[in-house]
Order: sequence, then C-alpha cells, then structure tokens
Amino acid sequence: MIFQKRTHTCGELRIENEHQEVTLNGWISVLRDMGGLIFIDLRDRYGITQLVIEPSETPELAEKSKELKSEFVIWAKGIVRKRENPNPKIPTGLIEILINDFEIINRSELPPFEIKDDLETSEELRLRYRYLDLRRQSLQKNFIARHKLYQTVHSYFDSMGFIEVETPVLMKSTPEGARDFLVPSRINKGRFYALPQSPQIFKQILMISGFDRYVQIVKCFRDEDLRSDRQPEFTQIDIEMSFINREDIFQLIEGLFQKIWKDILNLEISIPFPRLSYYEAMTRFGSDKPDTRFQMEIVTITDIVKNCQFKVFTDTINSGGEVALINAKGCAGFSRKKLDELTEFAKKYGAMGLAWMKLQNGEINSPISKFFNTNELDSIIAASNTEEGDLLLIISSNKLRCYTVLGALRNEIAKQTGIIQNISNKFSFLWVTDFPLLEFDDEEKRYVSMHHPFTSPMDEDLALLEKQPERVRAKAYDIVVNGAEIGGGSIRIHDGSVQSRIFSLLGMSQSEAEAKFGFLLDALKFGAPPHGGIALGLDRIVMTLCGTENIRDVIAFPKTTSGLSLMDGAPTFVDEKQLTELGIKLINS
Amino acid sequence: MIFQKRTHTCGELRIENEHQEVTLNGWISVLRDMGGLIFIDLRDRYGITQLVIEPSETPELAEKSKELKSEFVIWAKGIVRKRENPNPKIPTGLIEILINDFEIINRSELPPFEIKDDLETSEELRLRYRYLDLRRQSLQKNFIARHKLYQTVHSYFDSMGFIEVETPVLMKSTPEGARDFLVPSRINKGRFYALPQSPQIFKQILMISGFDRYVQIVKCFRDEDLRSDRQPEFTQIDIEMSFINREDIFQLIEGLFQKIWKDILNLEISIPFPRLSYYEAMTRFGSDKPDTRFQMEIVTITDIVKNCQFKVFTDTINSGGEVALINAKGCAGFSRKKLDELTEFAKKYGAMGLAWMKLQNGEINSPISKFFNTNELDSIIAASNTEEGDLLLIISSNKLRCYTVLGALRNEIAKQTGIIQNISNKFSFLWVTDFPLLEFDDEEKRYVSMHHPFTSPMDEDLALLEKQPERVRAKAYDIVVNGAEIGGGSIRIHDGSVQSRIFSLLGMSQSEAEAKFGFLLDALKFGAPPHGGIALGLDRIVMTLCGTENIRDVIAFPKTTSGLSLMDGAPTFVDEKQLTELGIKLINS
Repeated sequence: MIFQKRTHTCGELRIENEHQEVTLNGWISVLRDMGGLIFIDLRDRYGITQLVIEPSETPELAEKSKELKSEFVIWAKGIVRKRENPNPKIPTGLIEILINDFEIINRSELPPFEIKDDLETSEELRLRYRYLDLRRQSLQKNFIARHKLYQTVHSYFDSMGFIEVETPVLMKSTPEGARDFLVPSRINKGRFYALPQSPQIFKQILMISGFDRYVQIVKCFRDEDLRSDRQPEFTQIDIEMSFINREDIFQLIEGLFQKIWKDILNLEISIPFPRLSYYEAMTRFGSDKPDTRFQMEIVTITDIVKNCQFKVFTDTINSGGEVALINAKGCAGFSRKKLDELTEFAKKYGAMGLAWMKLQNGEINSPISKFFNTNELDSIIAASNTEEGDLLLIISSNKLRCYTVLGALRNEIAKQTGIIQNISNKFSFLWVTDFPLLEFDDEEKRYVSMHHPFTSPMDEDLALLEKQPERVRAKAYDIVVNGAEIGGGSIRIHDGSVQSRIFSLLGMSQSEAEAKFGFLLDALKFGAPPHGGIALGLDRIVMTLCGTENIRDVIAFPKTTSGLSLMDGAPTFVDEKQLTELGIKLINS
Repeated sequence: MIFQKRTHTCGELRIENEHQEVTLNGWISVLRDMGGLIFIDLRDRYGITQLVIEPSETPELAEKSKELKSEFVIWAKGIVRKRENPNPKIPTGLIEILINDFEIINRSELPPFEIKDDLETSEELRLRYRYLDLRRQSLQKNFIARHKLYQTVHSYFDSMGFIEVETPVLMKSTPEGARDFLVPSRINKGRFYALPQSPQIFKQILMISGFDRYVQIVKCFRDEDLRSDRQPEFTQIDIEMSFINREDIFQLIEGLFQKIWKDILNLEISIPFPRLSYYEAMTRFGSDKPDTRFQMEIVTITDIVKNCQFKVFTDTINSGGEVALINAKGCAGFSRKKLDELTEFAKKYGAMGLAWMKLQNGEINSPISKFFNTNELDSIIAASNTEEGDLLLIISSNKLRCYTVLGALRNEIAKQTGIIQNISNKFSFLWVTDFPLLEFDDEEKRYVSMHHPFTSPMDEDLALLEKQPERVRAKAYDIVVNGAEIGGGSIRIHDGSVQSRIFSLLGMSQSEAEAKFGFLLDALKFGAPPHGGIALGLDRIVMTLCGTENIRDVIAFPKTTSGLSLMDGAPTFVDEKQLTELGIKLINS
C-alpha cells in the first residue's frame, strides 16, 4: 500500500502555517457538499482539520470525492488557507486546507453508530464495536489522562529512589478473601497456578531481600461476582518500603497525589490530607470512606434521649445501641411520600425504621415529638444545629448499623438535594486510620482480617490479640477521595511469631499455615526489616480524574458484569484436545 | 516495633560527613571481633558501611554485640569518623561509624548459603531461598538496570507521542503457534479465557481505533516446553504505529536503543543500524540472527567446484544444493580429534559430513584436495582469503541447511578460539528484513506464518500469494544484537480481503477464520489505517545490558525449566471445591 504520509497531524495546523503545502492522513468525520464547495472534516487522535475542495477549480477531485463516506481513511494534500468562517471551538478552527490531491487509503462500511460524543446508544453495542467506540474523543481523552498518570507515577517513584520490579502473574493459589483465577499447568498436570489478587507477599519478600523501596503498576485479578464498578482484572499502583512508619507512607502518597493533580488537572491540592480514625469516620460520617466534600455530619444523641419516653430509642440504648441523626438542611419541605421512600432506603441498609423531625414555622413537627420533653427537644435542636426549615433524620440501632445507615442517608440526601452536583469539581482527600485488625464473619463463624493477614497489629494492642481480638487495632490505613476508597495499606508484620499468631487467630492450623504461607514464614526467619506499603486503585484514580462513574470508560477493553468481552467473545469454548493436554475435563462432559 | 529510623543509607556517607551523628538501618554482612575493636559491615541496597565498637569505651555495647550474627537487622547510632585503613573498593571506604548505641530489630537464622557474589551454590537452592539470593548485590544491580530500562522506555515513548494502553490479560484463546495458558471461567462455566501470547490483535484494534501510537510494557505467556532461556511468562515492549512504513519503525527503535545504551551503560552506539535482508543474513552468516561482532563470513563456492571431481559436491549441486565454507583463521593446528568433533557438531545441525582444508607450510592439506585441480584450489583459496595457518570448513547440502550448519560452525569456532570472549563488551546491532512470509510445515503439511498471520506481504509479491506462496516476502523485520534476536515486527495487513486470503493460505476455512479472528476481520471493515509495529524482548535486552546468559538473573521470581517456582511451590494442587466451582475436574479423578 503506497500512500502519501502526513506532514502534520489533524490537530496541528494554525494560522501561522498559512500558504504551506501539507499532507494529512485521517478519518472522514463529516462530509458536506455545499455545491460550490465540498467540506471534509478530517479526524485523527490529535484533532480535526477542515479540508475543502473547490469543484470549479478541481472538478476531477470533486468527482472523486463522491465516493467518500464517513470513516473512510484518506490522505489529502493541499495548501493551508485562512477560513472565511472560523470555528472557535477547535484549535485548528482558523484554517482549512484547500486540497489539490487525495486518495482513499481504506474504506469503511456504515458504522453501527455515529462516532461522536454524547452518544445515545446502548453500552452493549458500543462494547461489541469497541474499536469504533474508542474513536470517540471523549473516550480517547480518558486514555490520554491514564497515560499521563502512568508517566507521573513512574517518574515520581523513580525520583524517590523506588525500584520497579515485576512480580509473577503465574503464582501460587492462596485463597483468602476473594476467589483466585486458576491456570492449569500442562507440564505439572493436576496442579494449578493462580493469577495474583495482589502481589502482597512478593512485595514483602522483596523487602526481605533488601530492595528497600518497591513500586509496580500491576494487573490484579479477582474472580468475584462482578458489580457494576468492578472488573475481573484491574490495575493497582503497588508500593512497599522498608525501615519506615506509616507517616512515611502518608507523606509519600500525599506528594504523589499532589503531583498527579498538578500534572493532569493543573490543580493544586493541599497537603497533608486530614487523618480520621476509623472510629471517627464511622461516628461522624457513617462510613470508612466518607465523602468529606460536604458537611452534614452525624450527631449522636444517645445521651440526650436516654431517658425519653420513646421506647424504641430507650430499648436500643439499653441493649447497647445508639441513637443518632443527620440534619438535612432545608429539607423540611420533604413530602410524606419522600419520607416514606427514605424510610425504605434506610431499611435496605438494615434499619428497623426511620424517625424524623422538621423545624417548621418555629415548631417541631414530628410523629414522635410527643415522646420528648422540652429539654430533650431543645437539646436535640441545639446539638444538631437545627434551623428553620431543616429536617432531622434519626436512626436508633446497634452501633455499627446506626452509623452506616446514617452514612448512607447522608450520601443519599446529598444526591437528592443537589449538594453532590454542586461539588463535582471539588476533591477532598483524607486518610482513614486505626482500622480494627479483625472482624467476625458470621457465616464462617471465625475472625477474618479486615485488611489482610499480613497487617501488623498496633504494638500497644498486641497483648489483646488472643484475649479480645475484636478490640485490636491494626496499623492499617485507607486513602479516600470524594467518598471512594482509592487505596489501602498497612505496616506489615515482620516478626514471624506474630505472623503465626495471626494465622492461628484466623482459624488456620499450623500445617495449613505452612502449606499456604510457609515460604513467607520461612522468609521471616532470615532478617526481615520493618516494612509497610500501600496499593492504590489505578482505575479508580483515573475515574476520579476524568469525572466518570463508569469503570469501563477508563479500561480500553473491559468486560461486562458477566465477565464477557463483547468484542472478541471471550471467554470461549476450547478444543477438547487443549483440555486433555492440560489434564482436565469439563464436569458435565 | 519501635526502632530508630535511619538518617542515612549504608551507601551514602563520605568523608564530608566526618563528626556527624548518624543512624543507620541494615543487615549485618560481616562481623569481626578483633579484641580491641569490633567491626560490623552493615549492608542495605545502597551499599555497605563499616561500624565500629570500641570495647574499652563502650563495654556494654561490646557485650551486647556478642548476640549479633550474620543477616541480623539492626539500627545503630554513632559518629562518622575517618578510617585508619581506608577501603578504596567501596564508596564509603574512607569512613566508619563509631557507634554509641544499637539494637537488634530482627534476628536471622543461619542462611543456607552466604550472601555474597560469585556464589558457589546450586541454582536450585538459590531459587528456593530467592529472598536471600536477591540480597546479593550482583543480582540487585540487574534489577536496578531493569528499573532504569523501564524509565527510559516510558519517557522515550512519551516524548515521541505514544500512549501507553493496557490490553487485557484475560482474553480469547486463538491458538496459532505456541500453546495458550487457559483460565477457566467460573461465571461462564465450560468456557475459558487465555493469557496473551502477545497483545498483537489488541494493538491493531487500537490503531483501528485511531490511537495512532501505542506502547506498553506487557507480560506475555507461552505454554511451551521450556528451554533454559525461556520462561512461561516474559515481558515485552510492545509498540504499534499508524500511517507509517518500516523506516519509521527502524528510526524509532534505533533512537530507543541509542538512549537505553546511553542511559544505562553510558555508551554511544551509532545509528542507523545495518540492514540485512533475510537472504543476505543467511548466505553471509548462516543465521537470521547473526552475531556481527566478528567477521568469518560464509563463502559460497558452488560455482568454483561445480565441475570438480568430488562427487559429494557435484551431486549436491546438481540436485540444487550449495557448497560453501567458512575460514577459521589460524585454526590449521586443529587436531584430527577436534575436526572429528566439529564433524559431529555439523551433523547435529543436519549436515551429512564436514570437509576441511588447511593451508600449512604453503601447501593445502586436506583429505579431499585430490579431487580438485589447481585452478579450483586457487579459486577456493582466493575466494576465502585463506592465508598460511587457516582452516577451511566446507559444507555441501541443500541451500538452507548448508548455510545454517555453517552459521552454527561459525559461532562455535568463535567460541572455541576466544573470539567471542574478546568482544564480550562490544555491541553489534542490525536489522534483518524481507523475511519469507510463509514456511512450509512438514509435520502439519501446510504453510505456517513465519512471523504471524497479520504480517503484510510485500506489495510487489501480492500476486504470487496463491501461485508461489513460498516466494512471497513479508514486510517483516527483526532486530538483532550480538547474535540474539531482541525484537521482531512487521507492517500489518490493513486490508480485510488480504487478511482473508492469508487465513485461507494457512489452511483456515472461512468459518474457522470467522470463529477465531472474526472480530479483527470485522474491525478491518471500518476504516483501518496502514499500521505496523514491533515487540521487543525486555528480558533479553536486560540480559544483554547486564552481560548475563541466564534469564533467571533478570527476573525477580523466575520459574525453573519445569515451570516450577521453587520458593513458593507453585503450581500447587488445589481444593476439589475450587475446581467444582469452575466446572472442571482432573482427568484421572
């Protein structure tokens, strides 16, 4: 295929190039035959340039142009000239190319949807024809941002003395938490590799090897039942450091985000980020990933109402629960219907019900106000800073549930009242710290790690490990922006005996711990340094930077929530022969 | 764990720091109790610093130091002072730290081998304790070089306008060439993902999407019976560009290697690299990846000997074969035994035998010289530039075999005579171009792609495609350094009809082509730009930079040739339950 190679891209020419002869290559975006003039918008990754054919001057080109259709690939040569009608919306809008020659390089069938932004077509069709979908500039800009993010990450960590090391993709299966994807071994039949859920153990091994500072942008895999914001393969920025405490991680990561926001959005974000303990995050915002772009903090009124006449509250309090509320400012006008919907919403999150009070015309309007004396009501009003027109939403429940329901209500009210929309271009980072080390899993009837089994307990809580495991706090931390967790990490256990105690607390027998994690326990015997790290969710960071809630907008070839790649049809059935070679067969064959 | 954090690394302190109080963290490398003084070499990734305890001054530290052993992790605080006996071999060799306090941070059992370079221990033991093996500075320097390589690659391609895009790891199985690793899908039981042997089709799709310039450092997977220089997972630098010809790729990649060699080895390499056609590489060097650091080119003497009396030669020539030789300069002294060994060597590569001639004392010494007249002998001597003391090794065989055997002999002689050793610090790059598009696979009784099925034929050979497929040349190219292929690529097919012709030439029915590559054929219908690219073997490049022949020296957690990870034991048996969830079972269970 001989074609005339471009001298410039379609995003490059300016008025300064007037009178130059140039050649462009690209796709036909829009074609308009105005009779006296034929206009072609030629598109490539870099932009759009208007081409013009003057039928009176070049009738043979005009004739040839009748063959052209949308998405044809052409080369075109011509002279840059000033436009009579400039288009101020595009950088090349002051010029056009009067073309004196062109050829079709490749043809296109009629695309199943138009290549334009703000597309009204099903995501399914777009994923099926992903190569056309990806031609849209609104998607391409996400991948350019993603590319810039890689660059910033690579150069930042290099400047901080980190070494990028690749950890294996074919590794050992150590299911703990989510399910592993398995890969049958042909050479060692009957045995399986697993794809990494995270390179956690390998990065700890690298610290034990003395690598001191490790970073990797790495694909991780989880065989979960997918939610709309999850993908079976996702990308994390994986970091580990030796001879540090968590403050070193905080500073490192704050510097990173400062640089990312500057490089990509040209925004200054201020550091250090606020630090909230898990306890504080839960009791003030009802979430371990609070959206701190707005207030509406939770107010605990247990003490105020503990002697009230409302039995629902006092019963809850007497059995160790809490009563707390949020003040939905200016929402006293909410209809009964809306309040019923909010009650249903609260129930979905596990509440038994939702109590409310409105301050309207200077009076408290509430189905339950009669159960409280003036003192109690005044105290509630004062504690929640309630003003005329406000609506209080009150939950009484066991501690954890009381706060998580209010946390969910808080986000819901912010969404319904337009608060979220008004702050969509704000970024509010914070650290959540001091997580509990363990949580009791009611299904498995045992303690499970809240972070992962390699997380160090707080030194001062070590003595509680076997006695009151639920009270032990971890040296774990999450980084949160705008209500989304974008990373989590911890100081790790570097003492083999502590690691063994944790495995045993998690219900692992010694032989089981040996079989699964023996190589880590071995490695801890040979001089492991104190170390810790973090893993940041790269896909989620790109989503935040690009302002999209759809993870498929930032992954070039994503899977559906059923794990399908609609473009190529993966996963597919394979030859019996391939399976036989692997020593496996399908269960119902 | 509370420990005093380092103020400096173990590679950082110099005579300028004299009198400063510093704290170091690290591993005990060497411990020497000289009675009057106790010396500790403290090691981290950055270097080694000598610590000193003076028992007369700090008897309690001397006492405490008796607990210390190799590979213990400690913190130590003290004052930098000038050494009485400087060690010029290490950058910190002018100073030592007179320590006034230290504590053990973590203990170590006796390591199964000493942590030092030039280690005399089995690779198996080293891989089993990879975390200790990786503490050796000779290995760490490889990973630091590897890290620098990533940095150079990322910044180079960014500066050239490339976008890094991640392609899927869980993709469709399209076995063509090597075997795929398969991943059973739990959500879609009975169906499988495959791990990518290369992101070939995805990068072409990205070009069809208009991404224009794509780069990715990407893990690839091949389920092959492993050779010593192969790994089931390996890393490639994957590149694709639109609207270009192969000259653009050559320039891009030459610039890349120039920058890599400058950044990492501080060496200037000259560009452009020589370009040899496949035909020329084979007939001059007997290899499509010739080591051009040394001469010893192949001399074809078919024309000279076509009428000689040696029937072996004339029979070969009459049936279309060739006679050719290499001149092993100064090797006339080779013994009969050594020549017999070389004959065996040649037979291993498929030769029927090996003829030889020596020029000794002005006379030709050869078992076959009697079959040639003076004219023929003189012509052989002249053509091969033979001088006193030279040895000619002559092969007659069918064309391909004649040259490949001589190519192997050429490398072998270079190894045996010390030529290779003398040029081990030289780097000789070249491009090999114009590969045949197809080769006939005698086992499968069909044509197979020499590169891959997406490689474009030369435009001028398109007409031969169905008539004389073996004569069609491809727009394919390899980059070779010092006799190793470090990358290969091609201009791709962007015309769907040509792609279909190739699939059919490869013996694929239309429905088979649709099933396997339908999505590519579809994509080619919607305006595919001309495009091409290359994939560079990152592991091999690091090996070249670090001067190692062992791929496991440049991969942090490599597998053995049986696909085992000796450190963690992967692959392992997994629970029946895990397999049942995936809808598969073992064949003999």
